[in-house]
Amino acid sequence: MKFGYEKLKQDGAARRGTITTAHGTIDTPAFMPVGTAATVKGMLPEQVAETGAQILLGNTYHLMLRPGAERVAELGGLHTFMNWDKPILTDSGGYQVMSLSKLRKITEEGVTFQSHVDGSRQHLSPERSIEIQHLLDADITMAFDECTPFPADEETAAESMRLSMRWAVRSKEAFQQRDGYGLFGIVQGSIYPELREESAEALKEIGFDGYAIGGLAVGEGQELMFQTLEKTIPHLPEDRPRYLMGVGKPPDLVGAVMRGVDMFDCVLPTRSGRTAQAFTRRGTINLMNARHAADPRPIDPDCQCYACRNYSRAYINHLLKCQEMLGPMLITRHNLHYYQELMAGMRSAIEQGALQQFAVNFEAQYTGGDIPEI
Amino acid sequence: MKFGYEKLKQDGAARRGTITTAHGTIDTPAFMPVGTAATVKGMLPEQVAETGAQILLGNTYHLMLRPGAERVAELGGLHTFMNWDKPILTDSGGYQVMSLSKLRKITEEGVTFQSHVDGSRQHLSPERSIEIQHLLDADITMAFDECTPFPADEETAAESMRLSMRWAVRSKEAFQQRDGYGLFGIVQGSIYPELREESAEALKEIGFDGYAIGGLAVGEGQELMFQTLEKTIPHLPEDRPRYLMGVGKPPDLVGAVMRGVDMFDCVLPTRSGRTAQAFTRRGTINLMNARHAADPRPIDPDCQCYACRNYSRAYINHLLKCQEMLGPMLITRHNLHYYQELMAGMRSAIEQGALQQFAVNFEAQYTGGDIPEI
Ligand SMILES: [Zn+2]
Ligand SMILES: [Zn+2]
Repeated sequence: MKFGYEKLKQDGAARRGTITTAHGTIDTPAFMPVGTAATVKGMLPEQVAETGAQILLGNTYHLMLRPGAERVAELGGLHTFMNWDKPILTDSGGYQVMSLSKLRKITEEGVTFQSHVDGSRQHLSPERSIEIQHLLDADITMAFDECTPFPADEETAAESMRLSMRWAVRSKEAFQQRDGYGLFGIVQGSIYPELREESAEALKEIGFDGYAIGGLAVGEGQELMFQTLEKTIPHLPEDRPRYLMGVGKPPDLVGAVMRGVDMFDCVLPTRSGRTAQAFTRRGTINLMNARHAADPRPIDPDCQCYACRNYSRAYINHLLKCQEMLGPMLITRHNLHYYQELMAGMRSAIEQGALQQFAVNFEAQYTGGDIPEI
Repeated sequence: MKFGYEKLKQDGAARRGTITTAHGTIDTPAFMPVGTAATVKGMLPEQVAETGAQILLGNTYHLMLRPGAERVAELGGLHTFMNWDKPILTDSGGYQVMSLSKLRKITEEGVTFQSHVDGSRQHLSPERSIEIQHLLDADITMAFDECTPFPADEETAAESMRLSMRWAVRSKEAFQQRDGYGLFGIVQGSIYPELREESAEALKEIGFDGYAIGGLAVGEGQELMFQTLEKTIPHLPEDRPRYLMGVGKPPDLVGAVMRGVDMFDCVLPTRSGRTAQAFTRRGTINLMNARHAADPRPIDPDCQCYACRNYSRAYINHLLKCQEMLGPMLITRHNLHYYQELMAGMRSAIEQGALQQFAVNFEAQYTGGDIPEI
């Protein structure tokens, strides 16, 4: 089976499509839950699938440190290791090297850093990152890039982006083509339209199976992010998927889909599950709040997820107060379900040419506030 | 439906029976997982049921402090609150008051103590303990007793036991009879056969739906525990279930069933799941141990539980090193499955009059050591 993207329907700039991979098909626009260390925190893989997720993201940085890429390969690859038989995308490790490791040294060749786990000296280069992702058996491999800090002046952003483009060439050369496996390039250039254009053109010239937009959701705010998308996406090929990395909140997803993004990943639904925050149709709520302590209603009365069908806000509030694992487990399960349902809603709206109306309704309800206190 | 015990088969002193309750039937000998704070830590209720568990234990002490018995009652009782529709047994709170709370003061009336959660002043008496268990909607309510410290000299043990017997009278008076609900008395008397006999006779005189043996597994060792069982059980009625509280390790369960015990509860399978210890047919193993880091085999190659069907020792070792929730979740699930399978094996052996042989085989394999290193 050939790796590929098919566009089924367009609604404004938004696209409804499918991505075909060695481990199955992904309906887009798609949200990828994050399974950093070969587990979506607190979830069993079949529970993740039950929320509607068709693809997971794994982190090269974390997996190269623990348990190690060669170890995962010996154990049959990441799908077998973590018991997830659907598609997996791995990032390149570049972003986490910048955000988590210490004593980084970046050269033209690659980056040397100290592991945040045990202090050991580690190295990543385009060639090694691609090799690691191959060993992990990622369906979608990301080119190795430098994550440009934010804010960055135009000269710094240009230098960083051009380094990433040279690394993109080396990533493409290092990637072993196989049926059903794809390699994505990553557009950089911070918030500078000319740099984004230059980056997109450079990547198209190299040729990738998909195009990610990196270096956003790093503090620039939603307005600048949307502006940058509008300046970037027109330079990307129509016949390849577009992936906005590390995004985001529900309104970010809606706005980005309207601007032509097909794929997202974000730790928010899982991380929030561990900090008592639940996403609902009426915005976010904090389940540690005392107003929920006697509330027999579910997290979201309109949600049909496992958590909402079986447990009250009062029960989850109790679990959180007692620091019981089941609290984060249930909120995470709801949050992932919410995110997937939002994506499914957008896919359906695009099919009907009704995404604009969907966005208006979403916004009105999302900003309307929680159900009245009991 | 009437609460009751039916003995189906006897093999030596061991009994195969059923207990009928308002929320269903329990096959005995039975092991009850502990759901302290209205959750079996890290497990969904249907996963607990899938291991074969037919009844859970809830802790009066914890639930009275958080979220409070009246709160649970308002929310529909413990079954609804925690989404477990099978039988529940609650302890009386006496044991945890002694082991967890501070500034205890015991009088004839009851016990006053300081909550370990928020330092608040709390009170328990036979009447209040029974009321709380009623509010929780426990299928099996335990009489309120004083847990005699160990070691205790015979005079201290006698005084403590006689206080518990007076409290047993008051517990019986406070208990509201309802169809399908039962009240158990608790035999005390430390390791002194005469005191155990006196206690058993006192409880029989009061009349209970079942008889627990308390004050064991508190440091006296297996031999003294078994001796005490042998001195106690002959004084208990044949037509009521017998419950050995807080026990125990797999060999303890086998020895106690052979001596006529019908019910057990213990935190070991769940607590061990959070400290990397797994119970296997070949004894316990610590999954943090480096020998498992590259081992593609399951926790127990002969186990058909969810964890063993889907995950390697290497993966679980990795999860534990990364302090991922899924590690304890999977080990707990295996451990509970192992315990339930052990109980099912004993029930089947009793039916066939083959418990003695079962025990010999169990002992040989359990002490034989883990599968050889890869
Ligand atoms: Zn929900
Ligand atoms: Zn198992």
